[in-house]
Amino acid sequence: MQKKSDGQSYAPRGKAVAVVAPGEFLVGVIGLDHGHIHGMCNGLSEAGAGIVLAWDPDPEKCRLFREAWPTVRIARDRDEILEAGNIRLIASAAVPGDRCDIGVAALESGHDFFVDKPPLITREQLERARATVGRTGRRWGVYYSERLHVESAVRAGELVKQGAIGRVVQVMGWGPHRAGVAARPDWFFDKSRYGGILVDIGCHQIEQILAYAGAEGAKITNSHVANFNHTAYPRFEDFGDVSLICDNGVAGYFRVDWFTPDGLGAWGDGRTLILGTDGYIEIRKYIDVAANAEGDHVFLVDHEGERHIEAAGTCGFPFFGQFIRDCIEHTGTAMTQSHAFAAIELAIEAQERAWKAGVGGFRS
Amino acid sequence: MQKKSDGQSYAPRGKAVAVVAPGEFLVGVIGLDHGHIHGMCNGLSEAGAGIVLAWDPDPEKCRLFREAWPTVRIARDRDEILEAGNIRLIASAAVPGDRCDIGVAALESGHDFFVDKPPLITREQLERARATVGRTGRRWGVYYSERLHVESAVRAGELVKQGAIGRVVQVMGWGPHRAGVAARPDWFFDKSRYGGILVDIGCHQIEQILAYAGAEGAKITNSHVANFNHTAYPRFEDFGDVSLICDNGVAGYFRVDWFTPDGLGAWGDGRTLILGTDGYIEIRKYIDVAANAEGDHVFLVDHEGERHIEAAGTCGFPFFGQFIRDCIEHTGTAMTQSHAFAAIELAIEAQERAWKAGVGGFRS
Repeated sequence: MQKKSDGQSYAPRGKAVAVVAPGEFLVGVIGLDHGHIHGMCNGLSEAGAGIVLAWDPDPEKCRLFREAWPTVRIARDRDEILEAGNIRLIASAAVPGDRCDIGVAALESGHDFFVDKPPLITREQLERARATVGRTGRRWGVYYSERLHVESAVRAGELVKQGAIGRVVQVMGWGPHRAGVAARPDWFFDKSRYGGILVDIGCHQIEQILAYAGAEGAKITNSHVANFNHTAYPRFEDFGDVSLICDNGVAGYFRVDWFTPDGLGAWGDGRTLILGTDGYIEIRKYIDVAANAEGDHVFLVDHEGERHIEAAGTCGFPFFGQFIRDCIEHTGTAMTQSHAFAAIELAIEAQERAWKAGVGGFRS
Repeated sequence: MQKKSDGQSYAPRGKAVAVVAPGEFLVGVIGLDHGHIHGMCNGLSEAGAGIVLAWDPDPEKCRLFREAWPTVRIARDRDEILEAGNIRLIASAAVPGDRCDIGVAALESGHDFFVDKPPLITREQLERARATVGRTGRRWGVYYSERLHVESAVRAGELVKQGAIGRVVQVMGWGPHRAGVAARPDWFFDKSRYGGILVDIGCHQIEQILAYAGAEGAKITNSHVANFNHTAYPRFEDFGDVSLICDNGVAGYFRVDWFTPDGLGAWGDGRTLILGTDGYIEIRKYIDVAANAEGDHVFLVDHEGERHIEAAGTCGFPFFGQFIRDCIEHTGTAMTQSHAFAAIELAIEAQERAWKAGVGGFRS
């Protein structure tokens, strides 16, 4: 069981299946602002990577990280990690607005980069990131955890690829999150630092839509954002949704919000619905509400009947091993670079053009 | 148990609670094209109305209707019903494109009107209907069955009104339907007669969004339609979705489709999600997939916990008795006239402006 009460400290563990020899693939960490860093390091270390060096400007964050990862040494400063000759990959869960600079520095110092979502938050950052990838030939991997680190989501992807529901027609997601306002740092409420709700947690959803649709890109046809009930934080957004049509004609929609009520036994009742010409899949990721406190439920309905598949422990998290091999072999098996950037580019576009919902009716 | 395998012949029954004396409120029926007429007559007769006269140009439809309603006499022609002095209300489930003419004739001959959704299919028809209501002072009631004739939907409405989830933030619906192509008449596939998917089954959804949001109107911000997999019927649409923002700032989204797979134990896995500032409600209307073949499940999550409420048999269908009293007393308790027309007006607007999804990518 993972800690499920808040998403920030939700760090899944899976089966260890090493794809490299001990010591072959070493990781340094720069930026410990988001708890996702633990999930990222879990995934990498289960695939054989060694998490060896870490640094954050806040010594307290460094101390806590070392408690969780006792083999890690805290670096003197950021540059010590960038200059470390034995480090292959730099991982980061810094404040979203600061991630791009770290990534550019990582690639330019000869490393691959693995960053929490959102991997960056503005168009200008995206251009710099793309240019740096182009110039260095290094990879800018993104921890889109809501598909990559959720076993029911992985299992659903396998089913779709096997043709279990025919051709995909629409992908629909809800990404509700528990705000837990009291435990959040200042940057959490400042759009100029987290990017807005569609960038921050919406990019997860767009990544999933593209992946399940088998699409390379999409046209955003609509988006809304609102601050319905967090008026003490005027730069915060507690609601957003997006409609899109993928380049292969598949439709997509998602809603994200920060309204998970205290009574839910998980940080969010995250779901994905994949509608096909010959069936549909519903993923209940973290809980089956009022039925089962455990997560990872896949509901598959096809022409034969209705099935409830408990996905936990069935397929693991192949992303991490594939990503490590991608870094070593310059392949794109875990995720292509263009897919990783397409998801955040569409999220930024949706954020920029969003209608405002909420108190006072709509405004553009 | 109702027949649940196709939506066309799904005609719920509830507790009989007469609001009028026997013989006080008599109903004539014109137009038997859609099986919804049985649900409409069930609701009216359970509330004390007498279904006494019926007519359709097709004698076979008349014969079958009389089998189901043996006390009904088949009229000589349409005019016999329009001219019958004892008839208070005329009900209709004619082909959608033909409903407006029947309604105008009904009101102009001194009757109230109760029509299957969609109550009409074009702006021109809407203008005529509104003008006729204005001129005659009669009512044009609409059988938006997916809220009015589904006990879990009624129960959810009560919970929302009681403040169970705080202020409503978003209402989201999926209205999947089983196509059952072989048993459908020609008009089912002809957009010029059924109005398009957003008019035909989308108006249900908009009605629900307005009702649960407590809104009087909305702005359609986006819509899509597609024919993904029924290419033998080029005038058919098997997918549609709509985003909107209500006049009180509440956001709304729904998807409708004709992709219910054969293996589902109901004609559609219809759901509604109502997100509030202090909780959320999920309605699983016709089935709890792979868990319970019966319908009418309300899931309520608030700050106290998670609850599964089995709504069947708990609240009945108050619409019908209220509607009969509205006709008699010229009130608007069951549904205001402006609400009934607002839902279809927004559905027509969404239909007109829809982007095309589906094979070949998007096009406007």
